[in-house]
Amino acid sequence: MSTVLQPRGMPSEAGRPEVFRDALLREGVLLEGGTEGLYLRSAAFESVARGVEALMRNQMTGDGAEEMHPPPGMTTRALGRSGYMRSFPQLAGTVGCFCGDDAAHRRLVAKLDGEEDWTDQQATSEVSLIPAACYPTYAIIAARGPLPPEGHRVAIAAWCFRHEPSPDPCRMQMFRQCESVFYGSADGARAHRDLWLGRAQEMARMLDLPHAVEPANDPFFGRAGKLMARSQRELELKMELLIPVSDETRPTACASVNMHLDGMGQKWGIVASDGTVAHTACVGYGIERLSLALFRHHGAEPRDWPAAVRTALWS
Amino acid sequence: MSTVLQPRGMPSEAGRPEVFRDALLREGVLLEGGTEGLYLRSAAFESVARGVEALMRNQMTGDGAEEMHPPPGMTTRALGRSGYMRSFPQLAGTVGCFCGDDAAHRRLVAKLDGEEDWTDQQATSEVSLIPAACYPTYAIIAARGPLPPEGHRVAIAAWCFRHEPSPDPCRMQMFRQCESVFYGSADGARAHRDLWLGRAQEMARMLDLPHAVEPANDPFFGRAGKLMARSQRELELKMELLIPVSDETRPTACASVNMHLDGMGQKWGIVASDGTVAHTACVGYGIERLSLALFRHHGAEPRDWPAAVRTALWS
Repeated sequence: MSTVLQPRGMPSEAGRPEVFRDALLREGVLLEGGTEGLYLRSAAFESVARGVEALMRNQMTGDGAEEMHPPPGMTTRALGRSGYMRSFPQLAGTVGCFCGDDAAHRRLVAKLDGEEDWTDQQATSEVSLIPAACYPTYAIIAARGPLPPEGHRVAIAAWCFRHEPSPDPCRMQMFRQCESVFYGSADGARAHRDLWLGRAQEMARMLDLPHAVEPANDPFFGRAGKLMARSQRELELKMELLIPVSDETRPTACASVNMHLDGMGQKWGIVASDGTVAHTACVGYGIERLSLALFRHHGAEPRDWPAAVRTALWS
Repeated sequence: MSTVLQPRGMPSEAGRPEVFRDALLREGVLLEGGTEGLYLRSAAFESVARGVEALMRNQMTGDGAEEMHPPPGMTTRALGRSGYMRSFPQLAGTVGCFCGDDAAHRRLVAKLDGEEDWTDQQATSEVSLIPAACYPTYAIIAARGPLPPEGHRVAIAAWCFRHEPSPDPCRMQMFRQCESVFYGSADGARAHRDLWLGRAQEMARMLDLPHAVEPANDPFFGRAGKLMARSQRELELKMELLIPVSDETRPTACASVNMHLDGMGQKWGIVASDGTVAHTACVGYGIERLSLALFRHHGAEPRDWPAAVRTALWS
């Protein structure tokens, strides 16, 4: 992997991701959102993020993928069913609401007046936040009945939430993912994985970003999770596109390709054309991480980026 | 107000907003999200929504407004400070997270296995959802110190959350707003309000949508809230652009202009150039509602919409 800092790049320092974050804030690329991992985006950042998303989405719909644009939420019921709370409970977000009466509201206002914690009356609602862009699609695909013989593809762009406050600007709590999911045969799922593993690397070359591919190392929860993490690595079910962004020595996963085997098919009851449980596979691009990688390597001012990069994003 | 249904419009029925919703689902403009007020958007809907947002945003930045693009969240601390929990606690959403250990996780998994309610261990986090697009901007503007003599403008596009499940597709729980906020003198705030009250009506004409302007009727909480609602109407602090969408007899507020007087300035400590508390005013467009209004009046297929409307959205 190339670790040469291009002359026009933004500063970063090994082991200190806050150096890159502070440079982003100083240059006005991001604005403080009041807590770690929550930032407002400038016009420049947003224009890059939308360029990245359009680049990915056009490639996905070019394969005939159906577009779905979820809101940032899904049902709490579906989040429970998805398996995410088993593997990554520490990252998920449910939405709490106030359902009290006038008396409860007076208690709430008294706490606000006293600047006390006022959140004890919030009750979990039927809405939760999306942990990965593909999650709201499975129930929809399952409800349509058996898949066609060639399978089906969906392209999704969505805001995701993960509760992992960090000084690393690449580890935002709220960020966008663009995914292409395949639902169908085991062979089709593997072909989807292989196709996008190649395309992700092409994309990094097109955007002039140093990169490498490695098996993923997801933070499965607890002691049982350690076994799942090892199995994920050994079977190479999930591969990541790594780019040095906040830290040259600890590159950031900016995209991943993930074979779910028939795990999602079983959970959601998705049936292949031959009546067996469908296999699924997805590629996911981190819109914020890829945008940050571009700022890191090409500089704070997108107008000055290499012409080929600008063409890829905005032509 | 014109209530004539254009020949190419989508169906709706007085008192039955679900008729329009069902037509949107049948035509594939929206997809079921699993609970009332949560829908995935099709390629066609999203293309309209982005066209509407770009149209608004370009007008806002044409005034010299600074662009800010918040994520769907803000801090729980800032939500408490904003006053929203006093007036509309029933609509706000806080984000709950699991912060337990291995033993707590085993209890969680046992509940998932038994298909019981598993959310009792979710604890309110430092993150909440944005109730209106302008909310994350006030702390940023206050922190910059006294405003310039001419004031300042910010253009914001953001996902908002309001917990009001409804069969009316215009009352989504998660939707986007595009706002332009003015911070400065009382006269400047009033001029901003008047400017955008005119522009909102021009916009409706440009998009060939029947419309009317009326004082707002916000659902302030509880008995004390009734007084606030009356005062808001009598002072005409907030005016709404109403368009018949789901129901010809109960038109939908698709945009509003709102003078906060010095309420937000006081809450956030925003100081005008002369040292007094700043006044603020905002215009907010509901991206989803305007998009739905376009589908309602021009039909399910944007390719067939009037050329002038298509030009306004995508030229």
